[in-house]
Amino acid sequence: MSTRGDDEPEEVPDLTVVIPAGGAGTRLWPLSRQSSPKFLHDLTGTGRSLLQSTVDRLAPLAPDRVLVVTGARHADAVRQQLPDLPPEHLLVEPSPRDSMPAIGLAAAVLERRDPGAVLGSFAADHVIGDVAAFQESVREAVAAARRGSLVTLGITPPPPPPASATSRWGEPLSMPGARSVRHVEAFVEKPDAARAAEYVQGGYLWNAGMFVVQAGVLLSLLAEGHPDMVRTLRQIAADPGQTAALWPSLTTISIDHAVAEPAAAAGRVAVVPARFPWDDVGDFASLASLLQEESDDPGLRVLGRRELVVNEGSTGIVAAHGGRTVVTLGIDDVVVVDTPDALLVTTRAHCQDVKTVVATLQRIGREDLT
Amino acid sequence: MSTRGDDEPEEVPDLTVVIPAGGAGTRLWPLSRQSSPKFLHDLTGTGRSLLQSTVDRLAPLAPDRVLVVTGARHADAVRQQLPDLPPEHLLVEPSPRDSMPAIGLAAAVLERRDPGAVLGSFAADHVIGDVAAFQESVREAVAAARRGSLVTLGITPPPPPPASATSRWGEPLSMPGARSVRHVEAFVEKPDAARAAEYVQGGYLWNAGMFVVQAGVLLSLLAEGHPDMVRTLRQIAADPGQTAALWPSLTTISIDHAVAEPAAAAGRVAVVPARFPWDDVGDFASLASLLQEESDDPGLRVLGRRELVVNEGSTGIVAAHGGRTVVTLGIDDVVVVDTPDALLVTTRAHCQDVKTVVATLQRIGREDLT
Repeated sequence: MSTRGDDEPEEVPDLTVVIPAGGAGTRLWPLSRQSSPKFLHDLTGTGRSLLQSTVDRLAPLAPDRVLVVTGARHADAVRQQLPDLPPEHLLVEPSPRDSMPAIGLAAAVLERRDPGAVLGSFAADHVIGDVAAFQESVREAVAAARRGSLVTLGITPPPPPPASATSRWGEPLSMPGARSVRHVEAFVEKPDAARAAEYVQGGYLWNAGMFVVQAGVLLSLLAEGHPDMVRTLRQIAADPGQTAALWPSLTTISIDHAVAEPAAAAGRVAVVPARFPWDDVGDFASLASLLQEESDDPGLRVLGRRELVVNEGSTGIVAAHGGRTVVTLGIDDVVVVDTPDALLVTTRAHCQDVKTVVATLQRIGREDLT
Repeated sequence: MSTRGDDEPEEVPDLTVVIPAGGAGTRLWPLSRQSSPKFLHDLTGTGRSLLQSTVDRLAPLAPDRVLVVTGARHADAVRQQLPDLPPEHLLVEPSPRDSMPAIGLAAAVLERRDPGAVLGSFAADHVIGDVAAFQESVREAVAAARRGSLVTLGITPPPPPPASATSRWGEPLSMPGARSVRHVEAFVEKPDAARAAEYVQGGYLWNAGMFVVQAGVLLSLLAEGHPDMVRTLRQIAADPGQTAALWPSLTTISIDHAVAEPAAAAGRVAVVPARFPWDDVGDFASLASLLQEESDDPGLRVLGRRELVVNEGSTGIVAAHGGRTVVTLGIDDVVVVDTPDALLVTTRAHCQDVKTVVATLQRIGREDLT
């Protein structure tokens, strides 16, 4: 049943949402830091951080069934940003192990209550443009997951295509409540530019790391390649007191590699084509495209306190988070990111290279700034 | 007698130095402010402000005979920077009246002691590259001034020529102790680009506002066009208590217009061709040319705290005065000026337009930043 256009989207009673909140976002330095990564920031001027916005758009579908998984270093910040999150719904990883152990732990916790419960995993640091359309896609994905599939939400690639995995789109599947879901023939990890262009032409979809699957199914799929990991995750779920002792033994691996790719090869993956705008805010050029141009300053995008920015004939993006006035004069495609302890000045064309700055700062002993 | 190469240049007993310390330097915003103009700053990383450097290079010629004229707003800062300046050697203008009243007041004060004493006037905010050569030129100018001329130090124009007045260079004058001094045929105020290029070709010299003249001669020349001003200046010199009452009646006019131009037309001006590098540090492009390139970062010039600047493949100038780390990444000919309350990002090509930023800030009610 569609809820698009309704004020109160209908709850999906068997859905539990898992939000892995991790990733440093080094290409958004100095806004995003190891100590304060991307997901904790309001990057689009909505007044809510990316994490808060992620919870906001999923909580109506699964009230009181949102779990957040984050690193020990960020647990306090997550609690501050999500004061309504029950303490037992925050799962804290003692050390980073990529996405599979994080999501797998949530599945193991959920499985103890109901192996048939559906788990939907959504990154904490993506931007989604049409919340109603997103919720409708999730609803379809849940319907498909109830039939035992691992379901991904497939993104129509924006030009230029993001450098991430793609899912090949096969025949439509007939599933009640999931009219647009299709069979996935294969995942192709980070195709080269020529292959990526060919896939875009062919109408293939992009994997944005959004997976919907029954808890028991996920653990079964994982057990095929990683039986030890499933055993350990179930031990931790049964006795959280063992987390610190057992966590370090877990393999560092993404859910894409551990489950999605082998499951697709085995014909177990379905895709719901997304009908909503999506962006992983990978760098400042990407961020700029999400911001409105200033009405009195065409070509300039401002993040932060607009009243601090004075522009004379420049284009680009200015992030005014340093509390001081930022003046840009006659400079094109500039990226200025002002924070209290560090300032970045670059161009849109060099946005992908910002991560090299973080590496340089670490090399010269300025980890305090990263 | 030459003192070049000596450690202790010989004193010029009849010379009194006047240093008008004024001018906002708006094209160097946000380093230079109305509240803290250019002359109060160390713009070349020597550890001394432009004002202090000006005193340093002139005081050996006229120990205990250096007068500084500044506005009421900057008197405290000048006293702080020049703790050895006797209080009576700081002349405070109640309100700005351009250079003629400032220098004229110094002449009137000096004339009471000795009308034949020579006054040398030198702006507080210029950079001079070879102090010994400069002192030698001043010595020659004093010798010429003793014969009753108004003597200017003429700059060989650097390419491109500065947009200021030029002095036409005529026949050599024979004067003892002033072998290179020449007669000035005329001053030409701010010639257009074509005319300026022609003058550069013709070997004409540029007027940098450095005048050397006997106090009595200066007041006589001034009295020809502005007898009221001379009368008022002599009243103030006789009774400094009347300064506040009389100062506002003085005409706002530069020494170039009030004296140098009419005197040149009357054949009373001589020029000593300068043999020292000179720069009025008019904007950040000019400032950049005065700074050394970073040895490990060709094309980058840094002012302020070098350890705060991290560069990856950029060229231009970074002024790190904000106390935090400044990172420039892959951007060419950039100008980044970081201060605690304002940041400027522009390009070398737009350096002349920085003054429009100051006007904009005033228009939008941010005088506090100007």
